[in-house]
Amino acid sequence: MHCERSMDFTINCDLGEGFGRYRVADDAEIMPLIDLANIACGFHASDPIIMSDTARLAAAAGKRAGAHPSLPDLQGFGRREMMLTRYEVSCAVRYQIGAIKAFLDAENIPLSHVKPHGALYGMAARDENIANAICDGAEGFDVPILGLAGTAHEHVYTKRGFDFVAEFYADLDYDDAGMIVIGRRPQTRAATAAADRVVQALCHGVTLSANGLSIPVRATSVCVHSDSGNALELIRAIRNVLSTLGAIQ
Amino acid sequence: MHCERSMDFTINCDLGEGFGRYRVADDAEIMPLIDLANIACGFHASDPIIMSDTARLAAAAGKRAGAHPSLPDLQGFGRREMMLTRYEVSCAVRYQIGAIKAFLDAENIPLSHVKPHGALYGMAARDENIANAICDGAEGFDVPILGLAGTAHEHVYTKRGFDFVAEFYADLDYDDAGMIVIGRRPQTRAATAAADRVVQALCHGVTLSANGLSIPVRATSVCVHSDSGNALELIRAIRNVLSTLGAIQ
Amino acid sequence: MHCERSMDFTINCDLGEGFGRYRVADDAEIMPLIDLANIACGFHASDPIIMSDTARLAAAAGKRAGAHPSLPDLQGFGRREMMLTRYEVSCAVRYQIGAIKAFLDAENIPLSHVKPHGALYGMAARDENIANAICDGAEGFDVPILGLAGTAHEHVYTKRGFDFVAEFYADLDYDDAGMIVIGRRPQTRAATAAADRVVQALCHGVTLSANGLSIPVRATSVCVHSDSGNALELIRAIRNVLSTLGAIQ
Amino acid sequence: MHCERSMDFTINCDLGEGFGRYRVADDAEIMPLIDLANIACGFHASDPIIMSDTARLAAAAGKRAGAHPSLPDLQGFGRREMMLTRYEVSCAVRYQIGAIKAFLDAENIPLSHVKPHGALYGMAARDENIANAICDGAEGFDVPILGLAGTAHEHVYTKRGFDFVAEFYADLDYDDAGMIVIGRRPQTRAATAAADRVVQALCHGVTLSANGLSIPVRATSVCVHSDSGNALELIRAIRNVLSTLGAIQ
Repeated sequence: MHCERSMDFTINCDLGEGFGRYRVADDAEIMPLIDLANIACGFHASDPIIMSDTARLAAAAGKRAGAHPSLPDLQGFGRREMMLTRYEVSCAVRYQIGAIKAFLDAENIPLSHVKPHGALYGMAARDENIANAICDGAEGFDVPILGLAGTAHEHVYTKRGFDFVAEFYADLDYDDAGMIVIGRRPQTRAATAAADRVVQALCHGVTLSANGLSIPVRATSVCVHSDSGNALELIRAIRNVLSTLGAIQ
Repeated sequence: MHCERSMDFTINCDLGEGFGRYRVADDAEIMPLIDLANIACGFHASDPIIMSDTARLAAAAGKRAGAHPSLPDLQGFGRREMMLTRYEVSCAVRYQIGAIKAFLDAENIPLSHVKPHGALYGMAARDENIANAICDGAEGFDVPILGLAGTAHEHVYTKRGFDFVAEFYADLDYDDAGMIVIGRRPQTRAATAAADRVVQALCHGVTLSANGLSIPVRATSVCVHSDSGNALELIRAIRNVLSTLGAIQ
Repeated sequence: MHCERSMDFTINCDLGEGFGRYRVADDAEIMPLIDLANIACGFHASDPIIMSDTARLAAAAGKRAGAHPSLPDLQGFGRREMMLTRYEVSCAVRYQIGAIKAFLDAENIPLSHVKPHGALYGMAARDENIANAICDGAEGFDVPILGLAGTAHEHVYTKRGFDFVAEFYADLDYDDAGMIVIGRRPQTRAATAAADRVVQALCHGVTLSANGLSIPVRATSVCVHSDSGNALELIRAIRNVLSTLGAIQ
Repeated sequence: MHCERSMDFTINCDLGEGFGRYRVADDAEIMPLIDLANIACGFHASDPIIMSDTARLAAAAGKRAGAHPSLPDLQGFGRREMMLTRYEVSCAVRYQIGAIKAFLDAENIPLSHVKPHGALYGMAARDENIANAICDGAEGFDVPILGLAGTAHEHVYTKRGFDFVAEFYADLDYDDAGMIVIGRRPQTRAATAAADRVVQALCHGVTLSANGLSIPVRATSVCVHSDSGNALELIRAIRNVLSTLGAIQ
């Protein structure tokens, strides 16, 4: 195997997604293996304690830490669409970015990026109004936004002057149009197969849709959900293969 | 009447205390009449929309805007004590300050101060552990904290290096020890009587306890709750009498 | 004026829609003037205290009291659509009916009916899946369900063996297809005009759409929202004109 | 070993304590091994979906199912004390019992008992006002209440005419006065040691306090928390030893 593209790819992961008494992943194990931590902000998961702990983990591991804002739906883990106005979405996003930034400030690390979560992410991919709402909420923080290439994410974020980071999902299915299928839970995939899939996507710009169709993809970061069931194993496999190819630091 | 003290006093008011469909006060009417707006942050009242609107009101009126963090108790309006650890309180406070600061940033006005709300305020007045938790959460924001003179508020905040602003409550009863009585709702007082009471307290350093005892008080700011029932009338009367005495700008 | 139909019409009203410190209506004033109280259950408004108080009000006034279940969206007052599964909706509905029934039991009055609230109501009108979810949640309680004639409400509820009560909205606009327009807030209408509109609808089976088109409607109950701004006045006017016509008890 | 008392003891367990995306125990594994399921009602844990699922599990296993009401504190898992009035507590308890009863009705199994959770349980043990609030909320449901012998639980519940079931905690420490120590999490104890401890308590009426003092206890049911870390193992060991002694069915 080789990598056609010479970029330094990154692994990004949604972290700090417990709540109160609950945990969905071993964040302390995952943190050292990733590059960008998308930290939940209390709307789909997390609470002030977990946000503080997760900011501390990121700082201790020297990782880039970003905001992972969501629709306000703790019970649905932010994976159920809600019909909010642009102003409602923008205020929810700003609130969450401000909250996580306060914990990053306490750890003396900067806010690195913004990555919308779940249903909000999916809605913004296809609806410019929602993508604009995210920009409204992120304005002034001066950080890149992560999203899907070729969707309203890229179109709106770049038009609004934000840096855009295109990502590939290691643990979600793609439809024939190149859109991810956002369900209630990420896929639990075999680690080796997932790592191969990531190399195909990042290095060669192609992936297989759920229907088996070969479709073009464009991404410089790969996302793994911490609640996928085997996130740790997946991340290790991906990091390992990308390292071997010299395509990740 | 005259004022023994030559300070410029201020009026501070808890604002933005509606939630979703609900409102408790006409913030747009109150804002121009006060000096410091203590803006609710979503834990005892408010939501991202209302926070955005209230920050905008403060900016438009050229007022100083601070954070009004609370225990997480929307149903109890933050007026029921909860047994939280120091770390839980500090994280809750930091989360809320960060959230409101994001909306102030959007309006290009600085965070002016922090004033804990309701039960959190009362607990911090008598428990150094809670007062320290508030400092932990406010650390790094470099703004004064409002509180009661002669209590753990003043003692801890100043010891921790925060500027301390002592305040007097126009719409709460005081006990014989000079402590305010925090109930579920502020008093609805006759405006003239309340204004006289404020002059006695701010200008002459004395007030009557609920038992009719004359007790010393020390304050440079007067607080009015926006949900007191006649807040607007109270604030007008207080501002009027302090202006006449040349004791407020 | 006369009434072509000889039925005893009823007035139903959404009540108990405060939350914690907040109130949207004077329920004690409204209760004696209506026939059916649709009591909020804590998901779009209300809390256990208010539910207890409202059940007591209904019992004291000798009124029929029903459940007014909603999507779980306190911030949005249940007026924002959320994409829930049939099972999620049915469980949310059952939870809320059980909760309010416990307070009615305490007052020794039966559960009288179920009326879904806001966005849930609107979704059920056009989506049989959601209408079925409401039936799943209401099954076993053996009470009628209120809704809109000629929509999935009537079709599904009757097919599932529930009694169906068709209602007309005094404070909402209708589109040309006879569907109500559910916004964030009900209309504040002039009371006399609203009462005339109700007579036209209930007695003569016709109303004007927002476009001015005359459209057929069929209803035996009229709904007024308690948060409409002038609910009390509206209800008085409606009750008065229906009484004059001998069309209400 | 033998058992001095000839009663049929029972094992009760707090179940259905996940929330949305989160789980703390494998309820399907635990359910067949216990006698009484204390089902969480959405205030410290659970949601309508999980309550429906848990009621179904209890019905399928032929187990007795009760309400496990809590203070309203999802983030604190109901293990933080809150200063609520008697009326607030009673309404919260009634709301939760009504909600879970609706799911038991759907499964055609009766409400078997009420067992307050966490901080509410601890407060009721020492404060008659809170114990009375629980009775106010449970009144009319005509089921026993579980609690600690010799505390306000027993005193108030029996005085109010409720059947009282005394229980022993397999996974909590006792102080020298015979009161359990309610922390944020139950102990993870070695299963054999815990089972021995249960036999000592139930069969011989004695246990060791955290200080090593031998203290009298009186109980006919043993409680295991499902979130203790090794609940399944603990319950198996306890059931096994009690079965061997002929002291459980």
